[in-house]
Amino acid sequence: MKAARLTAWARTMIPGMAKIPAVRLGIDLGGTKIHCLVIDRKGRVLGTSRASTKASRGYAAVVERIAEVAHEAMDDAGIRRRDLKAVGIGAPGMIDPAGGVIQLAPNLGWRSKPLADDLGDELDLPVVLGNDVNFGALGEATYGGSRKAASSFAVFVGTGLGGGLVVGGRVVNGSHGFGGEIGHIPAPFGQARCGCGRCGCLETTASRTGLVRLVRQAAAAGRRCLLPTGEVRSGHLVKAYDAGCPATRAALAEMLAALGWGLATVGNVVDPEVFVIGGGVAEAFGKRLLAPLARAMTADAVLYQRHRPALRLAELGDDAVAIGAAVASGEA
Amino acid sequence: MKAARLTAWARTMIPGMAKIPAVRLGIDLGGTKIHCLVIDRKGRVLGTSRASTKASRGYAAVVERIAEVAHEAMDDAGIRRRDLKAVGIGAPGMIDPAGGVIQLAPNLGWRSKPLADDLGDELDLPVVLGNDVNFGALGEATYGGSRKAASSFAVFVGTGLGGGLVVGGRVVNGSHGFGGEIGHIPAPFGQARCGCGRCGCLETTASRTGLVRLVRQAAAAGRRCLLPTGEVRSGHLVKAYDAGCPATRAALAEMLAALGWGLATVGNVVDPEVFVIGGGVAEAFGKRLLAPLARAMTADAVLYQRHRPALRLAELGDDAVAIGAAVASGEA
Repeated sequence: MKAARLTAWARTMIPGMAKIPAVRLGIDLGGTKIHCLVIDRKGRVLGTSRASTKASRGYAAVVERIAEVAHEAMDDAGIRRRDLKAVGIGAPGMIDPAGGVIQLAPNLGWRSKPLADDLGDELDLPVVLGNDVNFGALGEATYGGSRKAASSFAVFVGTGLGGGLVVGGRVVNGSHGFGGEIGHIPAPFGQARCGCGRCGCLETTASRTGLVRLVRQAAAAGRRCLLPTGEVRSGHLVKAYDAGCPATRAALAEMLAALGWGLATVGNVVDPEVFVIGGGVAEAFGKRLLAPLARAMTADAVLYQRHRPALRLAELGDDAVAIGAAVASGEA
Repeated sequence: MKAARLTAWARTMIPGMAKIPAVRLGIDLGGTKIHCLVIDRKGRVLGTSRASTKASRGYAAVVERIAEVAHEAMDDAGIRRRDLKAVGIGAPGMIDPAGGVIQLAPNLGWRSKPLADDLGDELDLPVVLGNDVNFGALGEATYGGSRKAASSFAVFVGTGLGGGLVVGGRVVNGSHGFGGEIGHIPAPFGQARCGCGRCGCLETTASRTGLVRLVRQAAAAGRRCLLPTGEVRSGHLVKAYDAGCPATRAALAEMLAALGWGLATVGNVVDPEVFVIGGGVAEAFGKRLLAPLARAMTADAVLYQRHRPALRLAELGDDAVAIGAAVASGEA
C-alpha cells in the first residue's frame, strides 16, 4: 500500500483563496513615515496612502495620524471600513504580537504602548500588530520572492540586518517577538560595537554599516579606494564596485562571507526552502550578490553541499512590510 | 473595542484530544537496537518491545524485523493492527520525511531506502518516517519537558549534538530534512574535525566527545585531572566533576559556554518558548547544567537579557524518539 507522507507543511500552507478576505489593509509604521496599502486576494495594490510620522508630536497624535492615513488608503481604493475584517500594522522595535503591544521602539521614542488596542479603538476594527521585518518576510513569502515556498527566511540588508522566518504561510514571531533576529546572532567576525549594546553581532559586519566599515579598513590597510568620503549610500557602493574599486570589492566579499555564514547557520536550524534577500543593499547590488552568497553558504554548511535552499532577491521593495501586514490582517 | 491578537500559534497548537487516535505506535530505529512503543491519548505507554537491529543482515531483513517488533508491541499492549491508523518511525541520518525515504544512514549502512513504503507494505499500514532527533523533540514537546509550550527547541547532548524544532505541535523538518541540525552550525570554538567532514561544527565542542577532548586538553595544559584514561562515559565525567576535578570543571564550563552560544543563536532565529536539554550528558549531569547554560545564553544574546526562554531538562529519556514517532503517526 501507499505509505503516508509527512505533509504537515503542505496542509498548513497559505489558506485557500476562499478564506482570504476580498480586500485587506496593511500599514508600515516607521520612524519617519507611515505607509498604507489596500490589497486584493492576489496581492494587487488597490489603493495607497503615505504621510510623515511626526513622532515628536507624541503617541496619541501618531495613533490618530495612522488612522487618518488608513482612511485615505481606503478612499484611494474605493472601499469602506466595513469592507475590512481587520487591519494589520508593522512597527519597528521590540513587539509583543500576542499582546498587541510595542514594548520598545527607540525610533519612535515609545515604550509599552498598546498600539493594537489604541488603533483598534480609533478605527473600530481589530488590529494585528507585528514586527515590521517579520511582516516584510510574510509579504515576500506570500506575494514576493519566496511566494509558493513551504518555508522561507527573508533577510533585509540595510543600515542594519533584519530577518523573518515564515513556515507554512505564518510568521514565526517567537515567544518574545525575537523570531528572525538574525542581525543579533553572536557571530565570529570581530568585535565591533552593535547598536544593541553588545559587541560582535552579525549586523556589525553583514549590513551597509558593516560594509562601509570594511571598505574604510581595507583603504586604511593600503588598498586603492574609489568610494567617496562622507556619508555613503548603497548607490555609491555599487558605483565603486562596478568601477573595480579594490577596497569595495574586498569589503563586499568579506561582508557576503559573513552573511553567508549567517544563512548557513539559519539553514542548520530551520532549513527553509528559500532564502530571500532584500533591503537597500540588496536592491542596489541585485544579482551581483547571489553567486558569492551561495558559495559562502555552501562553504559553511556541509549539509548544503548537495542540497541547498534557493537564494532569491526580494520583489516587493518598500511595499513588503505593508503587504505583509495586510496578509496578517486576513488571519485575525 | 477589543483588538485582535496574533494567536496563530495558539490556534495551531496540539490538536484537541478528540482528534488524537486512542492508540498510536511509534518505533525508534537505531544502528544497534529497535525500540517500539504503543501509547494512549495521554502519552502513557501501553506496551513495548525491543530487539537488536542486526543491520549486517541487510535492509530487507531489518524491515521484516521492525515489523515483527511492532507486532510484539501491539501484542504487549493488547491491541490489533486494525486499532492503528498509521505507524511512526524515527531513523538516524539524512531523511526525506515528505518522500518517506532514508537518503543516507551511515549507522545502518543504508542509502536511498524507501522505508516508509517498504515498512508500510510489510505492516499494511501507512508509515510516517522522520529523523530520530526531530521525533525525540516532538516527543518531549508533546508529553515531556516542553509539553504545553507553543514552540520549543530540544537539544540532545551525547556522542554528538542533535536538535529539533517544534512549532505549534509540529516538527519543523525543513525542506531538505536538515531542520534542527544545531550540531553542524559553523561555530567559533576552534577547528576540530567533525564527523561530517567539516571543521569547527558546534558538536565538536558541545557534546560528550567535545567535553572529553577539552578535559584532556586542560590536563595536558597542566590542570589536575581525576578523569580515568581510556573510554569515558557520561557517568565518569559526572563522578570527576563531583569530586572537584579541576580539568573536568574547566572543560564543562567551556562546553556549556559553546552550547549556550548555540542556544542563543537558535534563540535569535526562532525564539522558542522553551529549550529542552536531553541526551546522555544531560541525563548524567542533570540540573548542574541549567544555571551555567542560562548564563552563557544571556551573555551571548542581548535580546535575552530581560526575557529568556525557559531551560528544562528532557523527561522521556530513551523513549523520546518512539513517543515522538507515535505522536507523528497520529497526524498521518
